[in-house]
Amino acid sequence: MTKPEQGSNQMWGGRFAAGPDAIMEAINASIGFDKRLARQDIEGSRAHAAMLAAQGIVDAKDAETIREGLLTVLSEIEEGRFTFSTALEDIHMNVEARLKDLIGAPAGRLHTARSRNDQVATDFRLWVREQCDAAMAGLRALQHALLAQAEAGADWVMPGFTHLQTAQPVTWGHHMMAYVEMFGRDHDRFRDARARMNESPLGAAALAGTSFPIDRHMTAEALGFDRPAANSLDAVSDRDFALEFLSTATICAMHLSRMAEELVIWSSAQFRFVVLSDRFSTGSSIMPQKKNPDAAELIRAKIGRILGANVALLTVMKGLPLAYSKDMQEDKEQVFDAADNLMLALAAMEGMVRDMSANRPALEAAAASGFSTATDLADWLVRELNLPFRDAHHVTGTLVGRAEAKGCDLPDLSLAEMQEVHDGITEDVFTVLGVQNSVASRTSYGGTAPANVREQVARWQEALA
Amino acid sequence: MTKPEQGSNQMWGGRFAAGPDAIMEAINASIGFDKRLARQDIEGSRAHAAMLAAQGIVDAKDAETIREGLLTVLSEIEEGRFTFSTALEDIHMNVEARLKDLIGAPAGRLHTARSRNDQVATDFRLWVREQCDAAMAGLRALQHALLAQAEAGADWVMPGFTHLQTAQPVTWGHHMMAYVEMFGRDHDRFRDARARMNESPLGAAALAGTSFPIDRHMTAEALGFDRPAANSLDAVSDRDFALEFLSTATICAMHLSRMAEELVIWSSAQFRFVVLSDRFSTGSSIMPQKKNPDAAELIRAKIGRILGANVALLTVMKGLPLAYSKDMQEDKEQVFDAADNLMLALAAMEGMVRDMSANRPALEAAAASGFSTATDLADWLVRELNLPFRDAHHVTGTLVGRAEAKGCDLPDLSLAEMQEVHDGITEDVFTVLGVQNSVASRTSYGGTAPANVREQVARWQEALA
Amino acid sequence: MTKPEQGSNQMWGGRFAAGPDAIMEAINASIGFDKRLARQDIEGSRAHAAMLAAQGIVDAKDAETIREGLLTVLSEIEEGRFTFSTALEDIHMNVEARLKDLIGAPAGRLHTARSRNDQVATDFRLWVREQCDAAMAGLRALQHALLAQAEAGADWVMPGFTHLQTAQPVTWGHHMMAYVEMFGRDHDRFRDARARMNESPLGAAALAGTSFPIDRHMTAEALGFDRPAANSLDAVSDRDFALEFLSTATICAMHLSRMAEELVIWSSAQFRFVVLSDRFSTGSSIMPQKKNPDAAELIRAKIGRILGANVALLTVMKGLPLAYSKDMQEDKEQVFDAADNLMLALAAMEGMVRDMSANRPALEAAAASGFSTATDLADWLVRELNLPFRDAHHVTGTLVGRAEAKGCDLPDLSLAEMQEVHDGITEDVFTVLGVQNSVASRTSYGGTAPANVREQVARWQEALA
Amino acid sequence: MTKPEQGSNQMWGGRFAAGPDAIMEAINASIGFDKRLARQDIEGSRAHAAMLAAQGIVDAKDAETIREGLLTVLSEIEEGRFTFSTALEDIHMNVEARLKDLIGAPAGRLHTARSRNDQVATDFRLWVREQCDAAMAGLRALQHALLAQAEAGADWVMPGFTHLQTAQPVTWGHHMMAYVEMFGRDHDRFRDARARMNESPLGAAALAGTSFPIDRHMTAEALGFDRPAANSLDAVSDRDFALEFLSTATICAMHLSRMAEELVIWSSAQFRFVVLSDRFSTGSSIMPQKKNPDAAELIRAKIGRILGANVALLTVMKGLPLAYSKDMQEDKEQVFDAADNLMLALAAMEGMVRDMSANRPALEAAAASGFSTATDLADWLVRELNLPFRDAHHVTGTLVGRAEAKGCDLPDLSLAEMQEVHDGITEDVFTVLGVQNSVASRTSYGGTAPANVREQVARWQEALA
Repeated sequence: MTKPEQGSNQMWGGRFAAGPDAIMEAINASIGFDKRLARQDIEGSRAHAAMLAAQGIVDAKDAETIREGLLTVLSEIEEGRFTFSTALEDIHMNVEARLKDLIGAPAGRLHTARSRNDQVATDFRLWVREQCDAAMAGLRALQHALLAQAEAGADWVMPGFTHLQTAQPVTWGHHMMAYVEMFGRDHDRFRDARARMNESPLGAAALAGTSFPIDRHMTAEALGFDRPAANSLDAVSDRDFALEFLSTATICAMHLSRMAEELVIWSSAQFRFVVLSDRFSTGSSIMPQKKNPDAAELIRAKIGRILGANVALLTVMKGLPLAYSKDMQEDKEQVFDAADNLMLALAAMEGMVRDMSANRPALEAAAASGFSTATDLADWLVRELNLPFRDAHHVTGTLVGRAEAKGCDLPDLSLAEMQEVHDGITEDVFTVLGVQNSVASRTSYGGTAPANVREQVARWQEALA
Repeated sequence: MTKPEQGSNQMWGGRFAAGPDAIMEAINASIGFDKRLARQDIEGSRAHAAMLAAQGIVDAKDAETIREGLLTVLSEIEEGRFTFSTALEDIHMNVEARLKDLIGAPAGRLHTARSRNDQVATDFRLWVREQCDAAMAGLRALQHALLAQAEAGADWVMPGFTHLQTAQPVTWGHHMMAYVEMFGRDHDRFRDARARMNESPLGAAALAGTSFPIDRHMTAEALGFDRPAANSLDAVSDRDFALEFLSTATICAMHLSRMAEELVIWSSAQFRFVVLSDRFSTGSSIMPQKKNPDAAELIRAKIGRILGANVALLTVMKGLPLAYSKDMQEDKEQVFDAADNLMLALAAMEGMVRDMSANRPALEAAAASGFSTATDLADWLVRELNLPFRDAHHVTGTLVGRAEAKGCDLPDLSLAEMQEVHDGITEDVFTVLGVQNSVASRTSYGGTAPANVREQVARWQEALA
Repeated sequence: MTKPEQGSNQMWGGRFAAGPDAIMEAINASIGFDKRLARQDIEGSRAHAAMLAAQGIVDAKDAETIREGLLTVLSEIEEGRFTFSTALEDIHMNVEARLKDLIGAPAGRLHTARSRNDQVATDFRLWVREQCDAAMAGLRALQHALLAQAEAGADWVMPGFTHLQTAQPVTWGHHMMAYVEMFGRDHDRFRDARARMNESPLGAAALAGTSFPIDRHMTAEALGFDRPAANSLDAVSDRDFALEFLSTATICAMHLSRMAEELVIWSSAQFRFVVLSDRFSTGSSIMPQKKNPDAAELIRAKIGRILGANVALLTVMKGLPLAYSKDMQEDKEQVFDAADNLMLALAAMEGMVRDMSANRPALEAAAASGFSTATDLADWLVRELNLPFRDAHHVTGTLVGRAEAKGCDLPDLSLAEMQEVHDGITEDVFTVLGVQNSVASRTSYGGTAPANVREQVARWQEALA
Repeated sequence: MTKPEQGSNQMWGGRFAAGPDAIMEAINASIGFDKRLARQDIEGSRAHAAMLAAQGIVDAKDAETIREGLLTVLSEIEEGRFTFSTALEDIHMNVEARLKDLIGAPAGRLHTARSRNDQVATDFRLWVREQCDAAMAGLRALQHALLAQAEAGADWVMPGFTHLQTAQPVTWGHHMMAYVEMFGRDHDRFRDARARMNESPLGAAALAGTSFPIDRHMTAEALGFDRPAANSLDAVSDRDFALEFLSTATICAMHLSRMAEELVIWSSAQFRFVVLSDRFSTGSSIMPQKKNPDAAELIRAKIGRILGANVALLTVMKGLPLAYSKDMQEDKEQVFDAADNLMLALAAMEGMVRDMSANRPALEAAAASGFSTATDLADWLVRELNLPFRDAHHVTGTLVGRAEAKGCDLPDLSLAEMQEVHDGITEDVFTVLGVQNSVASRTSYGGTAPANVREQVARWQEALA
């Protein structure tokens, strides 16, 4: 073995003046973040101990002592009386060392037939599973808030935009319900992810399983898993469950960012479509009318770090040979941060939606501008006069041109003026002009008509009841 | 309106010497890529035409003419006889223009009660749905190839690695089955994504639905959708189905990259664990023993572009207000490229797995090195002599030290030598030493024992039959 | 060697019905995309041949024959008369095979003292270097367009937004100049990247250099490189130059996305701050006033695929051991796509900026709303009356409240009304109220005052002359 | 204004049981992380106060009181005696509030002619600038460690790999020097980024500059900036400097991941190319020969979170209109985390490189295997016998086949045996066969010959002296 002459390890920047050992401790220890897995770690250990006793692998009394001791450790942690040690590296060793302090020798039996590899996989999976539940609850709460807005405003008209240009009038309720659908799919993604990840790694041991006569089905059941994972190598070395959580969270954050963008634009002085509550805004001490939509902006931004976490863990896992590699220690902080921020964004959005007030006159005025019912007129010509599409468009364009020249909107043209352009037009055309008529007419399934919106609200209220 | 004095628009770099119109055409036209949606576009139009007739919105004879004409267009495209026009911007207008050439006036009725917004959402959803099916088929084929390897090598021993260091012996079959599990979950993710996206946007029209008495359930059924999408704004403005496809593809590509990395390492002169077939390698004209695992390396790389596509579309969708924005035109190329490359990587991996030969002697020799059954010995001491874990570790460490000093492996120590270290050790200890004994003993559910592997193979063969 | 019994390789999905060879060709061949390197490849080969002759490694006449033959190949390619062969895998072998057809035996001398590894590294570096030049030219053109806008509108007032809420008035020119600064830094990043990448890999051979007496400085100079790369392993195995290009392109695309977002918002009916030209918009056949800012939306989206390409190549390169791995073949398509789209976005933005008209009355009206000069008033109180900040804020808030109650703006209050709130206020206060006064007063370096804007425009015009 | 009937805001998941105010505080407050900017914030304020006095905007005595008070606040923070308040939201308000406690009224003068927008832009830029310096120092330290390895092992032969297959022999020193080049470019990227970001935002105020007669050049100089930023809108609203830092850090992390991968592979039982020190590894209590390369694996993983941070901030900034939006508050945590982890990875890599021992016999044995000097033989035939490349390859392939049949390496063939294949071969051929001869012969600039390596080491030692 040959290596170059060594000078002293000269540290730079002062950050690691304490030398190599400090560097290794800084890069290697995980207790700084994996202590968030304390409860899951202890639950897993308690299930494991009970199984070891049931299978006669450890003495029943020892197992009971272990299980009681673990509860003591848990209460110390939850009450903030526990001193975490970096020298003990991770949550597993911190808990076990404290258990040994408390109960002595029997503590040494706990680690029989398991390894830190299956232990951390179990802890982390339990944690992520809980976050799926939290996300689902948060999404349901947000959907309820949206349903309340939709129900109240089922017939408030507003512009439907394409390219941020007014295209056709829609209803406020319809717009809210679009998000109910999106967040509904997000909910279901978390549900599917949860079901898929709900297999127990416990008992996979280091990677090969164990020769002890353990009962993995028993621990799986005790921890609420649907079944034990069927391959021990897979159980300790994959993190696809965390990635599916992150992917799902990212898509959800994308939806949140779109709604947040709308709230920011709608709050501008130029739009004035909504007023956000003071609780989710900040003001100016000297410009009382100024209300910054801080919460909406921050929600809009959250997709950044959640997508970043997703990219981070995918990059870590890329090209890792089986089974466990230390790289995988980087999994937790990304998921913790993404979960925390997703829950925060969901809660803030729910609060904002509950609190916000639509500016109905402004919405209606905007909806009516820009000949937004021109397509209704064209559709009427096709439907009632059986004009081909292109001809209907031509007639409509001519009528819009006349209205524009007169400085009025389409419904303000007289029947006579209309008949000058196409003599088949009848009084009936006025039933589709005007934004109220327009939205009321769009009764196709999924359309924006108030009746449809109310039906969808009712369907969702029942589904979420 | 005020703008500065204009000089001529001086183009740079020669790329766009033709001026603003060429630039606009280059950035705006999508026909260069969305022509891949031709079949889906025509299927959607045919379903729409049939429905318009059934609902009395267009004449039955016209509808039939349209439907026949569309088949003609399709055959022209499939036979390469169609001339795509950039001036006609996209696949929808290219098809419609050609239809008009073929059938004349009735072609103008087809676009009744729909818009390009719901049309493209429908086409694209149909395309992505097919890719879910293709990915599921590809995953099943790969699983079959892995099962064949696993069945053949259920009892071939090899090193189980952690940190790329030999940890415990496992079986070849067990290692293959770990990937069967991973690709099984990938399959199920595509299945769930497919089910979730299987709602028809057709009839959402521009964004608000329509006043024509359309039957969206009918078109949904005709196109194999489970139901029409319940909100028209949502139907034309979300792309979460494409993002779920991309997320799932990325996770699958991550699994592929891990297996590919193993194949690259296993093919090195230092490992020699596998020999890849010539079909998936390239050689050297002068170094006949050199075989570059090109296909494995390329598969390892594919996660890059698939993750890149995922990030790309998420970034595009971030913060887009409802409903349709032109930004969303960027969705297709990303999904096309990711799907193509995923299918290619799955096919190449399947081929490689089918063709590859395990180097059984090299695997076994590597498995036996490095005292890889030391944990079996420690477990035996715990299990049979009821030693506490720490004591068992101490005894094992001492025995390993003796073996190392003697230059032999653990099973080569005599019983007497063992008893010098702990006098409770009996002849029975040799039943767990040696790699064959080690793997045979790991019979816990999901463990590496050949019997377990065969059971898992049988379970999967039945499931996939 | 052991492998399982093989059935026939059953292909799925029809995509690869032709079997393993088709799959391998599909995944392995690069000629489909690397043909874009044809010119660079031939330039590199011509420089190499000249050097081989100069060093006496090949006969001078042979070298000249090679160099002439390569020009013929180039003209065939540029004129579209070249038939690329997938069987010949890549551009290098396609060119060389054709050269052999044309000139026979001497073609075999060309590959002396080089390898495809250094050849592709050279070709690709030359290509990326050209893209740096193109990006710099595109950025300069865009800056010129912005300078024209800034010069014309140096004193047009508009709202300065924070949180999309009017905060303080600024000038149109100042806003345009903010982008001139950003694009100036983007330009400099490309310049630095270009300088850093400008080292020649040619002569690194496969990875170790060569024993032929080549002159790498001569080929470096001939190809416009500053020097040969100093380490042959590094030269063939790193792609950081491509990543620096992509990173820089991503940051530039971020700037473009921000400006594009502003143009989309400013074009809305609610803002009406700008009118984009028809050339970069699309209209509606029946709603003549509707103008969709398609080009702006597409530019806004381009950051997606450019960031995606960046992520893709970083993920590919992550954890690749030295020197060349086939994974690196994935580098080119990402860079090609990112470069093409960046250049397109720059050209489209330049065109839009040249063509767009500011709606000066709308900008000014918006600037004046919302008591946007309240901070000017507060600053005046601090500056002229020496009030502490907090007191000044209190006085200002009170005055704003009075104006709001009266339904007028701050400059509309009389001096008497103001003195009721603070008796130190003098006539001079009106010199800072009103948006024109406000912007004129902000003369601090980098401030929005028209004089400052004109100075900055002049500075940049000189710098870019 | 209309909003739906409100029930109480029902919180879910218990996370935000305290209601909307707790949610808003959680999402809005930044003091939890921006307290890391305390020193920079205070430096900036001290420079600002001095300038206000110099310009006569505040009283000289007040300014001095402020400057002294700020030093007191700084020492309280550095000594851990400062209580940060979440109610005070951010570091700026925490510092200012404490200053007011300490010095009373004059504290109110400090915020004259600035805003939190330019303040945070200044603080953050100072912080990132320091990280550029730290990264440059860390890279230089790592280069020194690599140079020491390269100097010691300038002539130790090892395999040069392509596709992880032995291709040609190289020297250990040459391999180390490849990384010296890469980290050298990383260093220069940080240097360029630092130079580009080194403009002072201070005095840009909220966004428009100020009417106070401030001297931005004075504060810029006091804070070590090269000049004030030339546009106030740009100064407060761009974060490209942070993105350039992150991009550069990501590319550097990519290089680190490649070297780390090599160390992991080289440490495997199959390669045994290097032995890492115990300080950067973890062992097994019972398998003494097992040494897990934990630090290398963690370094390999760090690119994940650094790339993730880069993606996160780019996504946040995508499409943000000017000037300040609250989204930008998400910038700091990403940069903090990326910088911390980059510095840690650099320090750990430096330590590992200093401590590691090359296994010279294993390297040499591996280098000699696989006819790795076949290309040297082919080159000799071209060079000395003037054979065309293809013929030389054919002769070489035949000779390799003979050696393989005999079970020997190329240099073990006799001259007679060689001449049977090509009678022009002379004794001189043995000067290029054998790995020592091979590497010694590759003297082209940048080649692997020991003499070249020593020259490059000397060049770098001088450059870094």
